Amino acid sequence: MRVRLVSSTHFSAAHRLHREDWDEERNRRVFDKCNNPNGHGHTYMLEVTVDGEIDPETGYVMDFGDLKRAIAENVIARVDRRHLNFDVDFLRGVNPTAENIAVGIWQQLESKVAPGRLVRVTLDETEKNRVVYEGGKS
Amino acid sequence: MRVRLVSSTHFSAAHRLHREDWDEERNRRVFDKCNNPNGHGHTYMLEVTVDGEIDPETGYVMDFGDLKRAIAENVIARVDRRHLNFDVDFLRGVNPTAENIAVGIWQQLESKVAPGRLVRVTLDETEKNRVVYEGGKS
Amino acid sequence: MRVRLVSSTHFSAAHRLHREDWDEERNRRVFDKCNNPNGHGHTYMLEVTVDGEIDPETGYVMDFGDLKRAIAENVIARVDRRHLNFDVDFLRGVNPTAENIAVGIWQQLESKVAPGRLVRVTLDETEKNRVVYEGGKS
Amino acid sequence: MRVRLVSSTHFSAAHRLHREDWDEERNRRVFDKCNNPNGHGHTYMLEVTVDGEIDPETGYVMDFGDLKRAIAENVIARVDRRHLNFDVDFLRGVNPTAENIAVGIWQQLESKVAPGRLVRVTLDETEKNRVVYEGGKS
Amino acid sequence: MRVRLVSSTHFSAAHRLHREDWDEERNRRVFDKCNNPNGHGHTYMLEVTVDGEIDPETGYVMDFGDLKRAIAENVIARVDRRHLNFDVDFLRGVNPTAENIAVGIWQQLESKVAPGRLVRVTLDETEKNRVVYEGGKS
Amino acid sequence: MRVRLVSSTHFSAAHRLHREDWDEERNRRVFDKCNNPNGHGHTYMLEVTVDGEIDPETGYVMDFGDLKRAIAENVIARVDRRHLNFDVDFLRGVNPTAENIAVGIWQQLESKVAPGRLVRVTLDETEKNRVVYEGGKS
Repeated sequence: MRVRLVSSTHFSAAHRLHREDWDEERNRRVFDKCNNPNGHGHTYMLEVTVDGEIDPETGYVMDFGDLKRAIAENVIARVDRRHLNFDVDFLRGVNPTAENIAVGIWQQLESKVAPGRLVRVTLDETEKNRVVYEGGKS
Repeated sequence: MRVRLVSSTHFSAAHRLHREDWDEERNRRVFDKCNNPNGHGHTYMLEVTVDGEIDPETGYVMDFGDLKRAIAENVIARVDRRHLNFDVDFLRGVNPTAENIAVGIWQQLESKVAPGRLVRVTLDETEKNRVVYEGGKS
Repeated sequence: MRVRLVSSTHFSAAHRLHREDWDEERNRRVFDKCNNPNGHGHTYMLEVTVDGEIDPETGYVMDFGDLKRAIAENVIARVDRRHLNFDVDFLRGVNPTAENIAVGIWQQLESKVAPGRLVRVTLDETEKNRVVYEGGKS
Repeated sequence: MRVRLVSSTHFSAAHRLHREDWDEERNRRVFDKCNNPNGHGHTYMLEVTVDGEIDPETGYVMDFGDLKRAIAENVIARVDRRHLNFDVDFLRGVNPTAENIAVGIWQQLESKVAPGRLVRVTLDETEKNRVVYEGGKS
Repeated sequence: MRVRLVSSTHFSAAHRLHREDWDEERNRRVFDKCNNPNGHGHTYMLEVTVDGEIDPETGYVMDFGDLKRAIAENVIARVDRRHLNFDVDFLRGVNPTAENIAVGIWQQLESKVAPGRLVRVTLDETEKNRVVYEGGKS
Repeated sequence: MRVRLVSSTHFSAAHRLHREDWDEERNRRVFDKCNNPNGHGHTYMLEVTVDGEIDPETGYVMDFGDLKRAIAENVIARVDRRHLNFDVDFLRGVNPTAENIAVGIWQQLESKVAPGRLVRVTLDETEKNRVVYEGGKS
């Protein structure tokens, strides 16, 4: 039987939406108050979904503890209480929109959740705004 | 990269489940207490999901503010603090079940969320009851 | 030991903020969109808190099932899927603001939760707006 | 139009992750604290999703009350306030991981939600851990 | 300035409401399905509130990390993935109703949250049922 | 009748726990990862509670819309998408712990919620950590 596991957690980080190669006026027009020069931040809610077969021996797709540790070590330890524009290697040179952060998190986790298969990364900036990435390319 | 955005909001409306062409007994049998002659109401939770490619310039699928405004202008302004049987043009002549409201909201939004593509409308009447419409026809 | 029990539930009702003895313009100015002639509605979240001593025999302040039934019979059965301006005896002649509904619910429950003592009624119209009544008079 | 309905509820049950045919050391190593000899328990959150066409007469895919009763009678009545290792016929001989419970619930409901078609069972053990079963076989 | 800190967490445990000195019939009548012989369980949500003055040097009442650790070591480590009737020293001989568990947790924490002062323990068995203990005696 | 109104909202801000007059080692030891030189951030959940008598004419303690506007203009407009260490006049020279932010918000609102009387400010940095200020001084 194929079952999905969803592990939820959160991290607290600062960011600023900004492109160095745009002038101040264009940055302000496009990114509005999210371009505030000193930055702002979020408590990001993160849901990671993996898919797999139930192991008939254990009844697990994978141990939830292993999935949680994979997320903690490969994502949370690198983004929690950090500034996403300056402190996070996997976002270097990336404008840290929710969309881009979700893709970055996917890339850190993709090879780290075996025997599960990563199928979805969900990231909320606020309780009103969510992005969902499922590994898709156009 | 293809990413989905989910924007959540709510509206407060009255409705009554009722068909004019059915007699009172049949309306009562089928719609039970939701057929109460004076109507009742809900705080409807609404989630709208759009799909699109990340614009490599901005890092956005689309500006969340634009999505929020499209929902506010095309849906919320027309249903919030209204009676869904009497006050809402796009539900005229429709029995306002959660299913039909969700389809109606889809039709109002479908052409208004570019460059996103509408892929899901989720509507909760209570924390226990949810409907999901993805534009599908049998 | 004194402990409080909090029992949560919800009901779905229509209402209209309106005073018969005011003209249309004043009703509209004061109650704004909540004065919509056809009414609107909410999924009201209700929390009822009682206080009491732990019975040393049972370990209960009171059976949660008894508290839940008292709320179901004395409140929910009379307001769920109803119009608060027309269908509810204990709100007859009352402008059904959240404040007045909470006071009305208090009065229905006060003598019905023994051996607990009613200490708080909390009512949410939306996830953003809550009123709290603790039986206080000025 | 095809619409999905999601009905949410919860049940409170004990369980122990354990295989009779493994020795104590292996059970402890694999299932860790979930192998505690006296068991532990959860308030399981359950979401059941059915899919169907909107009946043009009623505006319903199916009556939410019917769906809720199907879940109450076929699932909740058999698992709520029970020990999943000992008291539940449809889990007899099954190691009650969240994955296996979700599959078992699917099997109880699959033929009981007409005219809806069961498409998803979601089960949360805690607010951090969720499993999702959609009937898939490898 | 006096400020309160509230730290939230959860634990998963089994319990059975039962008195050894009552016969089976009385246990069943009073505790109903919560008397199921094999027990049942809950994901208990726990909120611990402390009160204190803001330290003018740090701006903290106390470090949230210290409060979290005090709860983890003195409560969670002793109740999570356990059976409350058999495995928990501070509940030995106590019928583990939510009321009694909350009082027991208070007693474990009262001397462990300095420089904060313990003022409230809140425990939810389900999203519908909550108990609150503030140290009061009749 | 005296009733309390609770209005909930959120804002997204960056902050860094840091004292200029302490050396780096002491800042790091006391504030740990919250002292990260580039700062971090939160989606702060804010609940504001006012107390007052129900106006017998309107049935309102005060118009929820007025309360919401008072919070939006006096608090949210000054902190949302800002850096609390640099951009907020009422936190100038204050180490922006949750405790100090809550006190600062109280001071901005205290005179702005008439005819209500401010009785509580609640601020969550994450879903696990909350502070509550009720205007108390030791």
